[in-house]
Amino acid sequence: MPELRKDAVTGRWVIISTDRRKRPNDFRLERSSVIGAEYCPFCPGRESLTPHEVLAFRNGSAPNGPGWDLRVVPNKYPALQVEGNLDREGEGLFDRMNGIGAHEVIIETSDHGKVLATMSEAEIERVLWAFRERIVDLKRDIRFRYILVFKNHGAAAGATLEHSHSQLIALPIVPGFVAEEIDGARRHYKAKERCVFCDIVRQEIAAGRRVIHENSDVVAIAPYAPRFPFETWLVPKSHGARFEEAPRQIYESLARMLKSVLGRMNQVLESPPYNMVIHNSPFSEQSTDYYHWHVELMPKLTRTAGFEWGTGFYINPTSPEEAAEVLRKARV
Amino acid sequence: MPELRKDAVTGRWVIISTDRRKRPNDFRLERSSVIGAEYCPFCPGRESLTPHEVLAFRNGSAPNGPGWDLRVVPNKYPALQVEGNLDREGEGLFDRMNGIGAHEVIIETSDHGKVLATMSEAEIERVLWAFRERIVDLKRDIRFRYILVFKNHGAAAGATLEHSHSQLIALPIVPGFVAEEIDGARRHYKAKERCVFCDIVRQEIAAGRRVIHENSDVVAIAPYAPRFPFETWLVPKSHGARFEEAPRQIYESLARMLKSVLGRMNQVLESPPYNMVIHNSPFSEQSTDYYHWHVELMPKLTRTAGFEWGTGFYINPTSPEEAAEVLRKARV
Repeated sequence: MPELRKDAVTGRWVIISTDRRKRPNDFRLERSSVIGAEYCPFCPGRESLTPHEVLAFRNGSAPNGPGWDLRVVPNKYPALQVEGNLDREGEGLFDRMNGIGAHEVIIETSDHGKVLATMSEAEIERVLWAFRERIVDLKRDIRFRYILVFKNHGAAAGATLEHSHSQLIALPIVPGFVAEEIDGARRHYKAKERCVFCDIVRQEIAAGRRVIHENSDVVAIAPYAPRFPFETWLVPKSHGARFEEAPRQIYESLARMLKSVLGRMNQVLESPPYNMVIHNSPFSEQSTDYYHWHVELMPKLTRTAGFEWGTGFYINPTSPEEAAEVLRKARV
Repeated sequence: MPELRKDAVTGRWVIISTDRRKRPNDFRLERSSVIGAEYCPFCPGRESLTPHEVLAFRNGSAPNGPGWDLRVVPNKYPALQVEGNLDREGEGLFDRMNGIGAHEVIIETSDHGKVLATMSEAEIERVLWAFRERIVDLKRDIRFRYILVFKNHGAAAGATLEHSHSQLIALPIVPGFVAEEIDGARRHYKAKERCVFCDIVRQEIAAGRRVIHENSDVVAIAPYAPRFPFETWLVPKSHGARFEEAPRQIYESLARMLKSVLGRMNQVLESPPYNMVIHNSPFSEQSTDYYHWHVELMPKLTRTAGFEWGTGFYINPTSPEEAAEVLRKARV
């Protein structure tokens, strides 16, 4: 059974994932290659290699066989375990709970040759709808407080399979980085009665210098204090705390924006590995006034991550004004 | 001039380091190799390749020439600039200040063939004394609030030069990860009138399961909620908020402990790349009651860093009990 453990100093929770247990020899054997088409468990006809699907977009074909456009399956090597009780326990200073949670894989396309950036806008939108459906379903489980939707693209960003996919993890706690954002947004709202993200969107669109691209509903900006070179936030222009409650046209606009921004990155940065995360309101937050969901895209370009990773302190060699200009001018 | 910028939501500060400015082409050209002995600017006889030394342990030889055991020089490509005023400025929602700070390199040995783990205990202790001297000197500059002492060992941990060295960055702000620890330690002290690190040391020594090694003054533990496999904290057994104010014998004991723990890691994990950080009290903290300086060692073993790096959320496949057992049993 995996465990959730809380650091006694900072209050930060981590998952100790015993099912992914690694002994020293496992690290030595770790290969830097990703699994390609030959042994791909996500390709049509190999559905028996994944756990049973929890969602699929099919045109009448039977579950767990070929004939699908998108599938969502439990992760075969989950970081958390979906069955069991959320037993909580203290050990002197320390706190732990059972590692209860869901860990699912969104297989974004049946075509091994496609990646998010090369899919059609309609195909990308389909992926966003799958995120929404899974969030709505998992929210019903009262054990969960947060769902983290993320994508690792490329080996350097943590992907172990080549076939285009995203992941989601449903958690019984709110992860630290979300709590930090929520706290900040709440502080701003308390002081000014305004959403800080709405304020940022207004100021950035007016200034223009850090805007990468804009459509009717979504703006892509290089954030003012980016941790990483070419870090990009995709922010809905109108206020909304929850991704899964966004109006229909937002998904379409976000899909268009994703295709545009990923295309620009691929052109300018030679198809970089990247991480994508949806920052969403925790279920436990009653108020929807102060938080504003958005997508963060982080190309993985520098090798200096070791230091940042260890200290939480970021040195970024590329200004957001310069990154925005380069991406704005990219031809897609 | 580099800039310090504050994220409007989380309050996190980042350095936008224009002197290390990178355009898209620079990322393409980035090589994954480190500079070895042939072109090493840190080897004796090549002192003209570094800025003038700010500290050196010499036996009567002239500054900036050969004949030294350890040298400290300003970083040739500093993330921050030491000359200038700390101008602060707002831009609507956003806050920035000039990137004033010091960025120095501690060349730990004149011998290109040595690394921290293979140095003698006396040589390691000398490195710690150099850290102390530089902290004491830089603290006099009233523009600075924090000094971050760290080491990147190996290319995967961010090192670009092979010759054994550490770095320090003096900052006009307190970095986020330190603020988090300070807040947590202050909370604990307020509730219990005890230092949380002293409590951890007592509980861990009593339990023993997560103790890797112990000497008269320092204990090495696998922390209860580690972010990374084989993450190790070296904590002084007696309370002290400031590294630079530690009693003399602590440096000797810490040097012995570093040699022991790095030796164990090298044996068990095949000389892994690692990051080392000294967590120290900010200068601005008047009270020395609640914070407890310590060293954190993070071997870089997993390729899954991309996700953690982007989200601040950690999944660790190795329990600290298992890591401690493996390192405890390693023969050094």
